Amino acid sequence: MSFAQTLSLARPIPSGIPSADDFSVSTAETILNSTDIPEGSVLVKLTALSADPYMRSGVKTGKAGDVIRGFVTGTIVESNGNSSWSVGDTFGAHLPFTSIQVVDPAKTAFGMWPLKNFLTEQNIQLGLGLFGMPGSTAYGGLIDILQPLQGETIFISAASGAVGSLVGLLAKKMYNCRVIGSAGGPEKCKVLLDLGYFDAALDYKQHSTADSLTESLKKAAPDGIDMYFENVGGIHFDAAFRSLRTKGRIAICGCISQYNKGADEPSGNTIDISAMIYTQQRIQGFLCGEYLKGAKLNFFEDIARLYSSGQIKLPSDTVFNGIESWPEGFASLFTGKKMGKVVVKLS
Amino acid sequence: MSFAQTLSLARPIPSGIPSADDFSVSTAETILNSTDIPEGSVLVKLTALSADPYMRSGVKTGKAGDVIRGFVTGTIVESNGNSSWSVGDTFGAHLPFTSIQVVDPAKTAFGMWPLKNFLTEQNIQLGLGLFGMPGSTAYGGLIDILQPLQGETIFISAASGAVGSLVGLLAKKMYNCRVIGSAGGPEKCKVLLDLGYFDAALDYKQHSTADSLTESLKKAAPDGIDMYFENVGGIHFDAAFRSLRTKGRIAICGCISQYNKGADEPSGNTIDISAMIYTQQRIQGFLCGEYLKGAKLNFFEDIARLYSSGQIKLPSDTVFNGIESWPEGFASLFTGKKMGKVVVKLS
Repeated sequence: MSFAQTLSLARPIPSGIPSADDFSVSTAETILNSTDIPEGSVLVKLTALSADPYMRSGVKTGKAGDVIRGFVTGTIVESNGNSSWSVGDTFGAHLPFTSIQVVDPAKTAFGMWPLKNFLTEQNIQLGLGLFGMPGSTAYGGLIDILQPLQGETIFISAASGAVGSLVGLLAKKMYNCRVIGSAGGPEKCKVLLDLGYFDAALDYKQHSTADSLTESLKKAAPDGIDMYFENVGGIHFDAAFRSLRTKGRIAICGCISQYNKGADEPSGNTIDISAMIYTQQRIQGFLCGEYLKGAKLNFFEDIARLYSSGQIKLPSDTVFNGIESWPEGFASLFTGKKMGKVVVKLS
Repeated sequence: MSFAQTLSLARPIPSGIPSADDFSVSTAETILNSTDIPEGSVLVKLTALSADPYMRSGVKTGKAGDVIRGFVTGTIVESNGNSSWSVGDTFGAHLPFTSIQVVDPAKTAFGMWPLKNFLTEQNIQLGLGLFGMPGSTAYGGLIDILQPLQGETIFISAASGAVGSLVGLLAKKMYNCRVIGSAGGPEKCKVLLDLGYFDAALDYKQHSTADSLTESLKKAAPDGIDMYFENVGGIHFDAAFRSLRTKGRIAICGCISQYNKGADEPSGNTIDISAMIYTQQRIQGFLCGEYLKGAKLNFFEDIARLYSSGQIKLPSDTVFNGIESWPEGFASLFTGKKMGKVVVKLS
């Protein structure tokens, strides 16, 4: 007999930065009995939970009692006739935040992907970052959506985050790009430059208008940018769009500056579509699903090769411990009090 | 000895619909002497001039005396050692509007493309439409930029124009799309439906707001549209963007509603980029150059095959005669008093 813990929404959060009071943790007995597992399903124990900015939209419209769902890592405890999964295997998946649960791998939104070939118990949290959603987002967004040419200039917002930092690394290692990132505050900007693959770092906290941010970007890229990897929105988009060269591309990955806004607060960016004709520019939104599932490109193989060759140096994760600390980890995404990937480890 | 006529700008036209007074025609003696033709160059006589909406931006910023440049058809009168061109060959090109001139084919913006295999003296004006810039724009914009899937729904603005009508035809013949077009007035809408490949026609003159146009588009496409081929801008863009389904694409080809605006008049469209993430939508501006030059796809071969199989039925051209009638033809693009391709024949 074990106890499973579940994280739920205590109330909808229409606007503002979420706090611990907005969530609740419940505990229930779980009887680990093989007869309770349908054929083809597995019993799993979660080892880490992810906190990602995109989750802000789910809790905006959710209702009290909704179980939080997100990306996790875990270990197989029992397998009822599923030949792909054995006891002790580690995996990544998108699941409800319940520490022990029965899962039908065929019915999860993104499937379950094995991590045992890439990671150990010690670094299993990379299954939430480099070998998970952020990794596949950075990888697919750069290679498939932005389609870099060797030596082009790329601007990345929220560049000290889990996705942004990896975009910068891949742009430098794979395409020898000039890499410019934005981050909040001088400390994060220094971390970016210390990583070795960012050529310039902009402190966006120094800028409250698109004009000002454009000016700063112009100093880092006097001839403009070829690509923009969007994680922030707002004036970041405006500054990047104004700085975009002929045949420039923008990949819309996230919009963190907009997520905590209420439905009645203005959002949206103005673009001059007639100018886009002669510049042949492209703006494209995208999700990581196809890359994570392997429907397009070869995410796990390519990243594993880079990882095992020692070429991947990323900002340190920000780690929290215990399911009850997840709300604090989630809030840190929006207050700027974190670096790299936010991970909540379960004991 | 011959007389060459040249069309020039009489004054800049910052805003409004251009008129005949804004242009001037000059005549000069031309001595047809082989020794005046540099090696590799050709002496040509133009047979038809194109009037296209994109030319509005050139005359906006031009100065008095600037020779108008645009797409033309012509015939080779003499060739000084250029093995690609013989006397009597017909061609399409982008040249100054001077009826007789010496041309170095290697130095023209889009090259010169042969028309003798496709067209006769009688239908040479197709070199300005189907076998020219509008044809390659429709072809490349649909196939390369929008990348249709079989059976998808496409919305095309200015659908009775030279580009829009061909987009509709290709979308139906090649991809069996549901094809919806907008045009100005009931007469043009009837012409669209009579072509046989438009499933629905919207009279945009019935709509002065994006809300109203969106409502009308919703009736023609209750489940939304997969693709939008933009020729107009303004509320057309807004209505199309709001109607775009998941994985929807917009190709920005033209923006005729904006071309006559002055620099001080507001322009631009508002997009919610955060919504574009989950919908994985794309907005892309493009030009025809790569398709016309054969750097991408096989424009001339593919169009010639369709043409010779009798599958191409387009709206009738609107024809003007004589270089001095070009300003009237050009103005007709913006007043809506024309159908199909506007062509100015030279005697």
